[in-house]
Amino acid sequence: MSDESIPFAAVPGVRLAAVAAGIRYQNRQDLCLLELAPGAQCAAVFTRNAFCAAPVILARRHLAAAAPRYLLINSGNANAGTGHRGLADAEASCAALAALAACSAEAVLPFSTGVIGEPLPVDRLAAALPAALAGLDAEAWPRAARAIMTTDTRPKLVSRPFVIAGRRAVVTGIAKGSGMIRPDMATMLAFLATDVAVEGGLLQACLAEAVATSFNAITVDGDTSTNDACVLAATGALGNAPLLEANSADYRALCGAVGELCQELATAIVRDGEGATKLVTLVVEEAADGGEARRVADTIAHSPLVKTALFASDPNWGRILAAVGRSGLAGLDIDRVRIWLGDTLVVRDGGRDPGYTEQAGRAAMAGPEIGIRVALGRGQARAQVLTCDLSYDYVKINAEYRT
Amino acid sequence: MSDESIPFAAVPGVRLAAVAAGIRYQNRQDLCLLELAPGAQCAAVFTRNAFCAAPVILARRHLAAAAPRYLLINSGNANAGTGHRGLADAEASCAALAALAACSAEAVLPFSTGVIGEPLPVDRLAAALPAALAGLDAEAWPRAARAIMTTDTRPKLVSRPFVIAGRRAVVTGIAKGSGMIRPDMATMLAFLATDVAVEGGLLQACLAEAVATSFNAITVDGDTSTNDACVLAATGALGNAPLLEANSADYRALCGAVGELCQELATAIVRDGEGATKLVTLVVEEAADGGEARRVADTIAHSPLVKTALFASDPNWGRILAAVGRSGLAGLDIDRVRIWLGDTLVVRDGGRDPGYTEQAGRAAMAGPEIGIRVALGRGQARAQVLTCDLSYDYVKINAEYRT
Repeated sequence: MSDESIPFAAVPGVRLAAVAAGIRYQNRQDLCLLELAPGAQCAAVFTRNAFCAAPVILARRHLAAAAPRYLLINSGNANAGTGHRGLADAEASCAALAALAACSAEAVLPFSTGVIGEPLPVDRLAAALPAALAGLDAEAWPRAARAIMTTDTRPKLVSRPFVIAGRRAVVTGIAKGSGMIRPDMATMLAFLATDVAVEGGLLQACLAEAVATSFNAITVDGDTSTNDACVLAATGALGNAPLLEANSADYRALCGAVGELCQELATAIVRDGEGATKLVTLVVEEAADGGEARRVADTIAHSPLVKTALFASDPNWGRILAAVGRSGLAGLDIDRVRIWLGDTLVVRDGGRDPGYTEQAGRAAMAGPEIGIRVALGRGQARAQVLTCDLSYDYVKINAEYRT
Repeated sequence: MSDESIPFAAVPGVRLAAVAAGIRYQNRQDLCLLELAPGAQCAAVFTRNAFCAAPVILARRHLAAAAPRYLLINSGNANAGTGHRGLADAEASCAALAALAACSAEAVLPFSTGVIGEPLPVDRLAAALPAALAGLDAEAWPRAARAIMTTDTRPKLVSRPFVIAGRRAVVTGIAKGSGMIRPDMATMLAFLATDVAVEGGLLQACLAEAVATSFNAITVDGDTSTNDACVLAATGALGNAPLLEANSADYRALCGAVGELCQELATAIVRDGEGATKLVTLVVEEAADGGEARRVADTIAHSPLVKTALFASDPNWGRILAAVGRSGLAGLDIDRVRIWLGDTLVVRDGGRDPGYTEQAGRAAMAGPEIGIRVALGRGQARAQVLTCDLSYDYVKINAEYRT
């Protein structure tokens, strides 16, 4: 796919570059620089893995200290599990860029994705920075989307236009992530920017709301990475009066656009899940509360038996029922549980619905997109999780990566 | 492998038979009958899956009502997810045997393993019962071990001699299980018998203790089945005075033998894990309590990324570290965590040990048995879990089974 084939809108106040620094492979663009106009606001969410990587620690620290001017992102090396040296390496990378760009080191946010446990090659990274600065270009979103990829097979780039104060605004984002993906941020990086001016607290709330139902509601393999981060920058280049009210129509328009963008990027990550051949939308409803709805959804989504059946397009509802049963809900009554594959009712009254036919089940599983719905009969709460199947290629990719 | 190749000792007071009932396949021995001498004691533990199968419900009920005379076990059909009809089918199976054997239906414990959600073919099962009764034989343990198999590739049969009151006693057991295996009983059936006389409460305590560190400390894929059961029968045919004291040397000898037997059968299940090429012993130590030790061990054991790296013999310790980090322990300090592959220290002080070499890591991962040890630096508690790798064949077996 050529870069030109991805439709997108540049974001006034943002320029990007992608260069080959030789982080892990030669002649691959693996260093991405994203420049923000002075005065841009930045919101961010990070991994909840207790062992977060050095760049995550430093990005959090810098974000608290100064307004970001640059996001410095490398693929090929996660700079995680690298101890005190890793933190020093991340600091040195930021300092090298700051010296060239005449800003403070705190104005640089570092991000890394790739292999865990290898030292970051700071010298090679720093040597590529002059070319990155020289190459900054408002139209370079597609190249940036490619530069942050690891096991991804496709770049993920989405734009959404929306209207603020009668003006046409835009939010554009790129994301990467394919394996080590589960709720609560995975080996996932996403960088979003809008030209709207918005107060910092509202921007953070907007991002947190969008992430909760998108990036934090997808799972490929249940593994949460050490490096996940999602950043939303607001440059203010649109020239609107800064958004200050959470209830305003303009702020809701921004949130709506960011939410849709995150949902689309998150869906793209699951579609590109390592070895994935199916996109599976899993809905659990009639739960007593949101927590148990999510717990049941996660148990199904992480079951290797369910995921291999999905790969086989096999309507093996017994495995779904067994996963619901082991999800740890107290007092679960099998007679109240119903399960649908697509629109086909499969399970009720503790067993197969009398009207169910294997033919209908096979039809529901045959396509590249599969819907599974589970009603628990315990309340009104609901959760939705996107996942994919477990295929030979997942094993192949993860057995051969790093070797 | 011929049946004669498995060494075992018959248990006085126990006879077995295996016949072909055509439950799922033709001409395969899929029905196993185990007869206990009158007066035998039975202890049992069952699945904790909320949706336990009809035979589990009925076996619990019968066990509470009467002393068992027969264990009636079929493979090929789990009689799970079969609703009220499933319970009626299990009852009809027990009643059919009771009528032929002139015992009460409550003296029959039913067990099923195989596909979920298909009605149990009671007529074919009942039709095979006369041949099963006629074929009862104290030496039929190997045939029984084969008859209960589903995706298992090898029968699992172990005997342990021990000494009670100066007499040579024995405990012999068979087990099945290969996929849908995780702690808290999986798609696992195990039937153990000893000739010792022992009080019922002590027998149950003996079994519970043995299961906690064996069958409940193994995992293949994290899926807990609806049908798991483990039974320990004590026929008393040895003629010893019944064991009544938990602290007696004789009772400890029984517990020691049962514990070793369960450990050996559990290890055999993991070795025969669906698609398994590696047997992995995972030890988590220096935990604040046993619960968090087990939680970390389970998180590592269920990580698809760790399991595919094991398949590749790849010392990808970063994936282990990331799994520890996402296991949800509050206040985990990465600088105190150490990780060993075999005897090789790999991680300390938040990163790779300076003395670690990739060559040493590869050597530790190369063999068919791999040890992973994680020290958390938080306390004195410890947990051990046995698991296996995730291979192409796991996907193949589970994508093709039932199709």
